[in-house]
Amino acid sequence: MPKIKIDQFGKELEAKPGENILEVLQREGIDINAYCGGFGYCGKCLIKILKGNVAQPTAQEIKHLKEKISQGYRLACQAQIIEDIEIDIHDSITQKVEVLAESGEAILEELPVKKINIQLKKPSLNQSLSLEEIAENQLPTSPFVRNWTIQALQELSRIENQDEKSFEIGFDEKQIYWTNSDVKKASFLGIAFDIGTTTLACELLDLETGSTLYRAGALNRQASFGADVLSRLRAIQDNQGALSDLQELLLSSMNDLIQEACQKTGNDPNRILSVMVAGNTIMEHIFLGVSPISIGTAPFTPVFCRSYHTSARRLHLVIHPEARVYIFPSVAGYVGGDIVAGIGAHDLENNNSTLLYVDIGTNGEIVLSDQGKIYCCGTAAGPAFEGAQIKHGTRATLGAIHQVEIENSELKIYTIGDVAPRGVCGTGLIDALACLIKGGSIASNGRLQKDNHLLSSRIQAEGKSPYFVLSHDPQIIVTQEDISQLQLAKAALQAGRKVLLHQAKREESDIDQVILAGAFGSFINPESAMTVGIIPRVETVLSVGNASLLGAKKALLSKVFREKVENLAKKAQYVELSARADFQEYFYEALIFEKN
Amino acid sequence: MPKIKIDQFGKELEAKPGENILEVLQREGIDINAYCGGFGYCGKCLIKILKGNVAQPTAQEIKHLKEKISQGYRLACQAQIIEDIEIDIHDSITQKVEVLAESGEAILEELPVKKINIQLKKPSLNQSLSLEEIAENQLPTSPFVRNWTIQALQELSRIENQDEKSFEIGFDEKQIYWTNSDVKKASFLGIAFDIGTTTLACELLDLETGSTLYRAGALNRQASFGADVLSRLRAIQDNQGALSDLQELLLSSMNDLIQEACQKTGNDPNRILSVMVAGNTIMEHIFLGVSPISIGTAPFTPVFCRSYHTSARRLHLVIHPEARVYIFPSVAGYVGGDIVAGIGAHDLENNNSTLLYVDIGTNGEIVLSDQGKIYCCGTAAGPAFEGAQIKHGTRATLGAIHQVEIENSELKIYTIGDVAPRGVCGTGLIDALACLIKGGSIASNGRLQKDNHLLSSRIQAEGKSPYFVLSHDPQIIVTQEDISQLQLAKAALQAGRKVLLHQAKREESDIDQVILAGAFGSFINPESAMTVGIIPRVETVLSVGNASLLGAKKALLSKVFREKVENLAKKAQYVELSARADFQEYFYEALIFEKN
Ligand code: FES
Ligand code: FES
Repeated sequence: MPKIKIDQFGKELEAKPGENILEVLQREGIDINAYCGGFGYCGKCLIKILKGNVAQPTAQEIKHLKEKISQGYRLACQAQIIEDIEIDIHDSITQKVEVLAESGEAILEELPVKKINIQLKKPSLNQSLSLEEIAENQLPTSPFVRNWTIQALQELSRIENQDEKSFEIGFDEKQIYWTNSDVKKASFLGIAFDIGTTTLACELLDLETGSTLYRAGALNRQASFGADVLSRLRAIQDNQGALSDLQELLLSSMNDLIQEACQKTGNDPNRILSVMVAGNTIMEHIFLGVSPISIGTAPFTPVFCRSYHTSARRLHLVIHPEARVYIFPSVAGYVGGDIVAGIGAHDLENNNSTLLYVDIGTNGEIVLSDQGKIYCCGTAAGPAFEGAQIKHGTRATLGAIHQVEIENSELKIYTIGDVAPRGVCGTGLIDALACLIKGGSIASNGRLQKDNHLLSSRIQAEGKSPYFVLSHDPQIIVTQEDISQLQLAKAALQAGRKVLLHQAKREESDIDQVILAGAFGSFINPESAMTVGIIPRVETVLSVGNASLLGAKKALLSKVFREKVENLAKKAQYVELSARADFQEYFYEALIFEKN
Repeated sequence: MPKIKIDQFGKELEAKPGENILEVLQREGIDINAYCGGFGYCGKCLIKILKGNVAQPTAQEIKHLKEKISQGYRLACQAQIIEDIEIDIHDSITQKVEVLAESGEAILEELPVKKINIQLKKPSLNQSLSLEEIAENQLPTSPFVRNWTIQALQELSRIENQDEKSFEIGFDEKQIYWTNSDVKKASFLGIAFDIGTTTLACELLDLETGSTLYRAGALNRQASFGADVLSRLRAIQDNQGALSDLQELLLSSMNDLIQEACQKTGNDPNRILSVMVAGNTIMEHIFLGVSPISIGTAPFTPVFCRSYHTSARRLHLVIHPEARVYIFPSVAGYVGGDIVAGIGAHDLENNNSTLLYVDIGTNGEIVLSDQGKIYCCGTAAGPAFEGAQIKHGTRATLGAIHQVEIENSELKIYTIGDVAPRGVCGTGLIDALACLIKGGSIASNGRLQKDNHLLSSRIQAEGKSPYFVLSHDPQIIVTQEDISQLQLAKAALQAGRKVLLHQAKREESDIDQVILAGAFGSFINPESAMTVGIIPRVETVLSVGNASLLGAKKALLSKVFREKVENLAKKAQYVELSARADFQEYFYEALIFEKN
């Protein structure tokens, strides 16, 4: 078997016959960028061969890499291994997401799952009671609880055996889930998850105080199947085992975060007894191992929209096996539990103005709240803003150009970590586009124009395909194709909100406030977003950060909030854009860049 | 490593250092008699060394085997392996239980878990419904069901993917458990279990017709831990891992029966979708992995008495993972779900006479129904009737003396299978005792007396310990100690029923009918049982066979029956004998053998 040596790791990996480099790396758990899931289409899985040979470059490699091939650069997903090689994966290695959007504060109300400590009364010969009955009689809500999990019975029987009669008991109005006699381990923990297509975020909470103990983010390991949800749906459609592979990747990403959070805070994962999961509908399907492929094609029907309860055991989450896992209800295939959590967290249904809530992640969801009436839709706005399908696009990691401004008629760029630029991320792209619009270097149809404008010196028109230079050395550019991608994405968002406004019999000018949710929304420059047309021009733009995670946290700490989101999901009016004739009209209109 | 060769199997087993023969056999899944669980106390694990040597005989072996040791006989649990040996296990090999008590007929009423076939309506763009909602709208009880198991959602999503819209769906008023698109596999099966301390019995049913497809019995593999429940409790008390070992042995015994039933009838175990389990309280605890040791000592408190529902997945039963498993409610630590099932099956609570229901298995449970009012208690009457603690005692297998009569002043014995006698089983012992009483060869205190009586020639008074010879060649005897064991057991049963009668303010003469349940009860000679005093002398004695299994079957086929047993378990009045001063009095009185 040929071997792959990786410079950075001092590791040697064995390749199986016929494998390409990406397959070996993924098998070994080494994440590198592979937005398109290994189809040679995104060009992001760039690696360099330091020693040895791989098979002849494919057409895709020649298209993406051109003369770089002679320097040893190859696409990992295309390069077939034929002998021992040594490679450098530095250009595409996935770094820990460095920018974690804030989520906000949640308040401890009535916990959905309660815990109390009791002293088990001694059974007596004269009373024919079982231990479960004796324990229930000591619970405050005793008349309602008449059902234990098997695990809780098992734990109860162990308590009796140890003659340690003081113990804690976890229950809600339906069931008693767990008991524990080791009362020293006093912490009672919960964890809230936002499971996104690209990234996961979580917060570990102390359920007794409501305080956040730890926040962490990570890439969703599923990204190895492709950056956007459609590539994952394709994999599930094509391949029998892909669904369970995807589920496992998601769960292992979550388990890693759990482990990280517990290690860093010195907590025992077995003390995590409540979990809230908010994700888009497809992620929630995969989380439960339910095939989401019916969402992929019209009429985009999900298998379920309701919230579900299950146990950590059922999903192999490495926490207390009877920990309650709650999955947020969603509204439709493209308006998921993450949106429900977010709009719940920001109380959109109890608001008597007209609000627009926009969450741009891998997809773009739009919610219009008109005096508390909720309309919502989903658009395919995503991947371009995450740097996928963009020539020098990158995620918001070290070295990404995340801010672009014109200062004293000069273009200024800023990178994450203030290091040499490695690419441009979504917020940088929007800024760049806004600069071009303001500078007059872009026609209303999106065409770069090298006229007598402010940025003319940075616009190159090599043959028929012009581009905009953000950095000369290393060269980071925005191509005409990149601009087209962004144009399509902004048009989708713009047309989507027009349909919702039409549905609510409102005008764009009626909107009082825009709420930008999600990591992207929290770092984007609102002025640039308005200039480009991603959001309408309004007085107040509020960047709320990870609203979904805030909603998940609130649900962890409040039963009332959980009931509220259940209702919200039911009453939100979903508008299926593809069923609307007016959407196409709005969309074509929205392709125009207006100099506003 | 020394090896053990077994004649009968042509098998060679490896022994680990320090192991005795019993441990090796049990590790390899070869069941031999080991009533006391390997403590050298029952003397039943008899084997013969054909070649090679084992360590010096222990005191227990010398006590049990005496001069037989010189012929190569040893106790498997005592004999330490020191070199390669060849052995014969023929004397103690556990045979399939040959006598399976009948259970009776159950009628198909409203199934607790229903199944219907539906055609899933096509989703449309204009209706924002999920597949689960579309399916629910087609269910007859649609307003009530709003909750699917994850497995059912997963199966539903697969149906959609295959574009096979016709499928079956399993549900009750609370949840939808499973769906299936492979509608050709039309059978819809359930299995009823009676899990006893010594034996298991099951019936496989077609839930669409209510007919029994297969009946089978097997020994409970747990017997390797000891014959009676107390030896199992002791093991759990002493050894951390014993509880899960015992649970696994029980589940593997059940899985074997399931496999046998499916193979013999050509059914797919995955089509078993409902399971009913009736067992004594300790077996039900072990079945769920809940420690029963609190039942072992006063006040004999069980961890749970209520019925429980769970899934096959949770218990690793090898059938459909979402098959509903229902465990019968019990009344107390020594009146279990098997008794509740049995008295429910025979409608004891809807009866306006005075009935005594006696189930003699490893324990002896007594139920008195007085115009439908139910009183019950448990007595430690058991193991002697199963041949344990009896010198030549054996279970009711091939060669067991199961019937003893006096015909024309001659003692006649009958063996199971009409072969040479190998021992005497419970029914034979009761008969023998009845013959002794009738023949005047036993004093009222239980002492064998070699006077001028009918059976004098068969009574030997070797030294101080006389015995009764049932068979000369091979010699099968009933010793004075055996009679004492039986005397204690009958006294416990007799005193128990006296307490219940006292509680109900009734006399023995008020009893209209005795119902004998259980395998033992169904083969026992009622006249002998009355002579010995195990049951009172009444006009009508009804042997109903395995009433617990009948109850389990009824619960499989009828929701109404299930509700009825739930109520029965609640309203039955349990009498704890050890808390009653009068029990001791009755017990001493009951030690007397009355010539009736
Ligand atoms: S080109 Fe290799 S992963 Fe996309
Ligand atoms: S004497 Fe060996 S098992 Fe009882």
